Amino acid sequence: MAAYTLTIHGGAGTILREDMTPELEAAYTRGLQEALDAGYTLLDKGGTALDAVLAATRSLEDCILFNAGRGSVFANDGSQEMDASVMDGKTLMAGAVAAVRHIRNPVDLAYTVMTQSQHVLLIGKGAEDFAALHEIKTEPDEYFFSPFRYEQWKKMQGTNEAALDHNVKVTDKKFGTVGAAACDMHGNIAAATSTGGMTNKQWGRVGDSSVIGAGTYANNKTCAISCTGHGEMFIRAVTAYDVSCLMEYKGLSLQEAMEIVVYDKLMKIDGEGGMVGVDAKGNAAMVFNSEGMYRGMRSSTKISEIKIYK
Amino acid sequence: MAAYTLTIHGGAGTILREDMTPELEAAYTRGLQEALDAGYTLLDKGGTALDAVLAATRSLEDCILFNAGRGSVFANDGSQEMDASVMDGKTLMAGAVAAVRHIRNPVDLAYTVMTQSQHVLLIGKGAEDFAALHEIKTEPDEYFFSPFRYEQWKKMQGTNEAALDHNVKVTDKKFGTVGAAACDMHGNIAAATSTGGMTNKQWGRVGDSSVIGAGTYANNKTCAISCTGHGEMFIRAVTAYDVSCLMEYKGLSLQEAMEIVVYDKLMKIDGEGGMVGVDAKGNAAMVFNSEGMYRGMRSSTKISEIKIYK
Repeated sequence: MAAYTLTIHGGAGTILREDMTPELEAAYTRGLQEALDAGYTLLDKGGTALDAVLAATRSLEDCILFNAGRGSVFANDGSQEMDASVMDGKTLMAGAVAAVRHIRNPVDLAYTVMTQSQHVLLIGKGAEDFAALHEIKTEPDEYFFSPFRYEQWKKMQGTNEAALDHNVKVTDKKFGTVGAAACDMHGNIAAATSTGGMTNKQWGRVGDSSVIGAGTYANNKTCAISCTGHGEMFIRAVTAYDVSCLMEYKGLSLQEAMEIVVYDKLMKIDGEGGMVGVDAKGNAAMVFNSEGMYRGMRSSTKISEIKIYK
Repeated sequence: MAAYTLTIHGGAGTILREDMTPELEAAYTRGLQEALDAGYTLLDKGGTALDAVLAATRSLEDCILFNAGRGSVFANDGSQEMDASVMDGKTLMAGAVAAVRHIRNPVDLAYTVMTQSQHVLLIGKGAEDFAALHEIKTEPDEYFFSPFRYEQWKKMQGTNEAALDHNVKVTDKKFGTVGAAACDMHGNIAAATSTGGMTNKQWGRVGDSSVIGAGTYANNKTCAISCTGHGEMFIRAVTAYDVSCLMEYKGLSLQEAMEIVVYDKLMKIDGEGGMVGVDAKGNAAMVFNSEGMYRGMRSSTKISEIKIYK
C-alpha cells in the first residue's frame, strides 16, 4: 500500500492578511477543510484518486466563497458561465467543459464527458444538451447567486474591464479557481479544476481551467496538477504539462519541476498564480508566485495543513 | 540571414491512391501549391514567419477541398462551426477561437484575438461579437457550402455517428484540418491551424485545433508545430508542446522529437494523424502515422515538395 495524498486549492492572487476579517478567514478555512475531508475520506477508505479529486472539487464548487459552481462570478451579460476539467493519470483519459450555465457541478459534467462521450472538450449550449441527456444536475440562477459577486459585477458592469476574481482594482488580482490533485493507495493519480472565470468577462473568454495540459494534467508516470492563475499565461506556457515534462525528460522531482514552472517560466511572461500537485509516490506540493493561495494538503503520512498566505 | 522554410498540411487519414481520381489529385496538389506559394513568397521577401503561416493557412481555408473555412464540414444542426489557432514563437503570444460561424478566415480571427485582446481563447457567439467589433470578414452560409460536404452530412444526419472528415465509413478516417509552420530569415518561427471539425459533430465538440499546446505550438527556442488528426487523442497527449519539450529537455532534433510523439506517444493511445513542424534553424519535418497526409514543404535551401501518400 502506497502513501496516499490529497491537495486542493481555492484560487490564488493578492490575498492579504490585512484585507481579511477573522470571520472571513475562518469561513475560507472551513470551506477548504470540508473539501479536504470530502476527498481524503475516500482515499482513506481505499477509494480512487479520481473519486477523491471529484469529491474535493465538488465540495469547493458547492461553497459560495469560491469562484466555481455556486458563487461563480458574473459575466458581462449577468450570466454565470463556468469551465471545468478532469484527467485520470492511470488511463490518460480526460474530460472538459467550457462556458456552461446552470450546471450545479461543472466538474461532474467534465467527468461525464470523459466517461460517457468519445470527446474531451464540449462547450456552451452543446455541453448543456449533453448534460441534459446524462441527467446532470442543474440549478436555477438563484442557486449560483452570491450578493458579494453581484456587487462586484455591478461595479464593473458597462465598463470594458474584466477582473480575474473578486476585485475591481486591477492591481489587486485574485484568480478564482478551485481544484485538486490526489494520489491513492494503489499509486494512481488524478487532477481536476473548476472555475467561474473572470468578473464581467465577455466575448466567450475561456481560460486555462478547461484546457488539458494548461490548467489540468495527470499521468501516473509523472504527476497530477491543478492550476489557478492568470489563465491566458497558463495556456501560453502549457503549465500543467510542462511540470510533467520536466519530471519525465529531465528527471526532476515534483517540487523542483513545479518551482521552475511557477517561479521561472510563468514569471517571465508575468503569469501570476500557482498550482497544487502530487506524484504517484504520494508526494505533494503547493507552489505559487502570488501573495497568497487558498490551499490545503493531507496525506497518510500524517501531514495535514490548510494555509492562505505566504 | 538564416535558412527560411514553410511547411503546410491539409489533413491526414486514410488517403489512398486507389480512392483518388487524377483530376482530384491534381486539384489537391494545386490547392497545396497555392498555399505554399502564398506563404513562401512572403518569407522570400523578408516577411515574418507569422505572416507566412497566416497566408498559407488562409489560402487552405479558401480552398473548398479542405475542411477549414470554405468547404468546412457540417455539424449535426447543418451549421458550419470552425476552430483555429495561431502562435508566435518569438513572443509566445497565442490566439485561438472555437465554434465560430460565418467567419471567412478563422485563422485571421485567431490572430486578432492574439493581437487585439488580452485573451487567448474566445468561443462561440462571444468570439463572433469580438470579430464584428474588429471588422473581421464574414460570409453567408452559401459561401461555405460544398455539395460534397453536404452529401456527406445528409448521409449521417439523424444518426449518432460523427466522422472526422469526408467519410461516413468509420474505418476510413480522414482528419480534415489545415495548418502551417514557418521559419523566417530572421530565425523567428510560428505555427497556425484551422478546421471545420467532424462531420455531424454535436454537443459543441471542440478538437485540438484551437487548443494551444495540443494542435498548435511555437517557441523560437525549440519548434513550431501544427497538427492534424484525431483531436481528442492530440489533446490528451498535449502533442505539439510535447515535441517542444523533447527538444528542450532531452536535446532531440525536430525530426527525432516529432517521430517519438507521432509514432510512439500517439500510437499508444490510438491517436491517428500527423503534424508538420520547423525549428529556428530552418529545418522542417512532416510526420504522420496514417495512410496519408496532404502536405508540402519549401525552403530557401531549395527543397520543395508536395506529397499526399506515404
